[in-house]
Amino acid sequence: MTGSSLQLGPDGQLRHLLTIEGLPRSVLRTLLDKAEGYADMRRGDDKKNLALHGRTVVNLFFEASTRTRTTFELAAKRLSADVLNLQVSASSTSKGETLLDTLKTLEAMQVDLFVVRHEASGAAQFFAEHAAPDVAILNAGDGRHAHPTQALLDMFTIRRRHPSFSKLKVAIVGDILHSRVARSDIHALRILGAAEIRVVAPRPLIPAGIETLGVKVFNELDAGIAGVDVVILLRLQKERMVGAFLPSTGEFHRDFGLTRARLAKLSKDVMIMHPGPINRGVEIEGDIAYGDTRSVILEQVEHGIAVRMAVMETILANRP
Amino acid sequence: MTGSSLQLGPDGQLRHLLTIEGLPRSVLRTLLDKAEGYADMRRGDDKKNLALHGRTVVNLFFEASTRTRTTFELAAKRLSADVLNLQVSASSTSKGETLLDTLKTLEAMQVDLFVVRHEASGAAQFFAEHAAPDVAILNAGDGRHAHPTQALLDMFTIRRRHPSFSKLKVAIVGDILHSRVARSDIHALRILGAAEIRVVAPRPLIPAGIETLGVKVFNELDAGIAGVDVVILLRLQKERMVGAFLPSTGEFHRDFGLTRARLAKLSKDVMIMHPGPINRGVEIEGDIAYGDTRSVILEQVEHGIAVRMAVMETILANRP
Amino acid sequence: MTGSSLQLGPDGQLRHLLTIEGLPRSVLRTLLDKAEGYADMRRGDDKKNLALHGRTVVNLFFEASTRTRTTFELAAKRLSADVLNLQVSASSTSKGETLLDTLKTLEAMQVDLFVVRHEASGAAQFFAEHAAPDVAILNAGDGRHAHPTQALLDMFTIRRRHPSFSKLKVAIVGDILHSRVARSDIHALRILGAAEIRVVAPRPLIPAGIETLGVKVFNELDAGIAGVDVVILLRLQKERMVGAFLPSTGEFHRDFGLTRARLAKLSKDVMIMHPGPINRGVEIEGDIAYGDTRSVILEQVEHGIAVRMAVMETILANRP
Repeated sequence: MTGSSLQLGPDGQLRHLLTIEGLPRSVLRTLLDKAEGYADMRRGDDKKNLALHGRTVVNLFFEASTRTRTTFELAAKRLSADVLNLQVSASSTSKGETLLDTLKTLEAMQVDLFVVRHEASGAAQFFAEHAAPDVAILNAGDGRHAHPTQALLDMFTIRRRHPSFSKLKVAIVGDILHSRVARSDIHALRILGAAEIRVVAPRPLIPAGIETLGVKVFNELDAGIAGVDVVILLRLQKERMVGAFLPSTGEFHRDFGLTRARLAKLSKDVMIMHPGPINRGVEIEGDIAYGDTRSVILEQVEHGIAVRMAVMETILANRP
Repeated sequence: MTGSSLQLGPDGQLRHLLTIEGLPRSVLRTLLDKAEGYADMRRGDDKKNLALHGRTVVNLFFEASTRTRTTFELAAKRLSADVLNLQVSASSTSKGETLLDTLKTLEAMQVDLFVVRHEASGAAQFFAEHAAPDVAILNAGDGRHAHPTQALLDMFTIRRRHPSFSKLKVAIVGDILHSRVARSDIHALRILGAAEIRVVAPRPLIPAGIETLGVKVFNELDAGIAGVDVVILLRLQKERMVGAFLPSTGEFHRDFGLTRARLAKLSKDVMIMHPGPINRGVEIEGDIAYGDTRSVILEQVEHGIAVRMAVMETILANRP
Repeated sequence: MTGSSLQLGPDGQLRHLLTIEGLPRSVLRTLLDKAEGYADMRRGDDKKNLALHGRTVVNLFFEASTRTRTTFELAAKRLSADVLNLQVSASSTSKGETLLDTLKTLEAMQVDLFVVRHEASGAAQFFAEHAAPDVAILNAGDGRHAHPTQALLDMFTIRRRHPSFSKLKVAIVGDILHSRVARSDIHALRILGAAEIRVVAPRPLIPAGIETLGVKVFNELDAGIAGVDVVILLRLQKERMVGAFLPSTGEFHRDFGLTRARLAKLSKDVMIMHPGPINRGVEIEGDIAYGDTRSVILEQVEHGIAVRMAVMETILANRP
């Protein structure tokens, strides 16, 4: 059973969120609609909601990410769940057997929802396959495979400016090869009917056969982003910055970084996106990220909480 | 004053939980009865209870144990307490003086309950001796001395299958010498009137004089577990696996590990227990733990939350 | 704009708490009065208050301090806020740019209040300068600059014994040079009108020009504390115990440590204070801290929670 079929129940309702691939457009839209209800909470408001009162959410992170964990923790707390953060070293659970022990032990504590992040592709699916029927699994990033809540928050952010995707042109720029964000965004954009999806990267960072996902490949930045409505920059992982794939970060920035000069050639309504955290002076020139109205990077962060609240509430409500 | 007298108030009510030794049978039974009220909470339920609303519980762990801390954290949160997790390196508080400073400082923050885990036997008692009269101390494991909530959850799990202990035969298998779980289980089984308690281990892992606790000693596994109703396997601590006490973990498994072949010789109703986490292929053959109906290891985990909630509520309610 | 003007709104209300310097006496008194309302919560009480229900407080600690973080965490939880603890290594955010990224990212999650601790003087002010208008910043210690909540809890503790400061003589003893506590206490004592403020330290630990703050300098302990009502001992940071500033901790204790013999020469009503954690046998003889009625060190800890609750509630209530 694949992740995409595993996550849907017999009536097509969302039981887990493992991947964007294969999600019906209606499910995706329903999640985005539900997130609208959480997107306008502001400082000063009582941001607490009783939807998950008395439920137990465990953030089970085998791969460290304070920032991502923080967004899930806040989302769960604002829904009134009890939240546990467990940071597990992947090395101590390298075998499937002990991953299973961890799952079964926490399940026995009547945990309702696991937010799982793991460096191995397929880890969240493994959890969903082996979990008790009334446990929900939320993939917070598995290897190079998928990062579905990131794609949802990206779509949410785009949709607020462009309610229809049918004429939308989107360029995804950077390390496509290693990026679970790129994969999840491509699936989401196709499902929502985007007119054109481009991937823009130096050849070594383009995965073989990517065209089969319905994208156009560009190996040159200016051509790749010309005329688009949205530019999604990907984070260049430090460990991949220098080595087999790239000569240097300086060279990457020169050829594929979004500079003021390049930004000037784009539409004044273009949306500049990045999943964060940014590497200043690598993917993007320092002061564009938080100092230019075309950058919606902080809107993405804000919407991340709303989208995660919507997903948590949905998959827990859909339990048998 | 010993821990066993220190933990009981003038009217015999439980003020702290430091050790099972010396607890009246009625106190032990009342705790198990109270835990019944928390044992049937399920996923999907609102598991929140207001018993400790506005009280402050500190998990003060001088010895790292994510798993045990998690069970106390969940228990306290489900009782609506405010919970603080403090992981303190034992080296930084090696002297009684600074242990006292830590206690007094946290007490001044109006902490109601301390859950204390320490590698030194007697640490929880030290806290109870020096704490303010209205502070409650819960021992979450002190050196080789005691682990009372583990014994309570073991008794709870056994009692659900065997309401009367009077005909019960129980074998405790493994590193008896270093095990606070073994000590606490032996005391609990005696107090509840178990018919026969056996300890089963290679000679170097049997403490001198253990017979005075009312147990039978076996140095051979098959004889030791023949005819028993319950087998409690102990965790073999990694640092003791090889060295003065044991030739090798392989040899331990061959001679004292619970294999499928050995399990086949036992009653089909035998209960296989382990405090976790298990070392697969050492104390137990890989797939028995979570793949055989005779293993109740996950029930133990589940009951651990209920038992800890019952203890927390009891000792806080019994404050002067 | 300086921290002292930045923290007051157009009508003189407290918007952030960055420093004691420049605070109007009325503001300071109002905070202390409000803290009175929280100071009598006891074990056994339901210590929960709904003032910050549904608000989000982030403890953003670039400098590790479990103890200080604990007091802010408890204060926020007792006010029913959702609390996130983020421990950030200062090295990873050494540039102002990335400090700003951290602020802006967390702001986008609709965080209401940041409790900031940083080894660099001015860090909290930097946050206040760049924060959104409805975000509140609470300085939990910035370099050698300020530690305003420590000064407030010290004043609170003194005021409970001495309702009027007008005849009060206070000596601050120890490493004045590196101490943000000393600076904040001096400002607070002046604002509240203390009769005499002394600083007592070996010459290398007295900052040049300290007299301009209105204090008298003493380089000898017995003379420095003779006739005072309050002795505030400062913590000697370990990394500064030996080296350029001091010959040895033994010598420091001999010359500047509060011993039983020295204590005997002081008034029987003298208050002995220390921000904690104490170094036994360095600043103070072992058993005075928690074993002498003149020591109010534990009262300071207790009042620390009340004062922090008062500050959090005040600066969040004063948002535009």
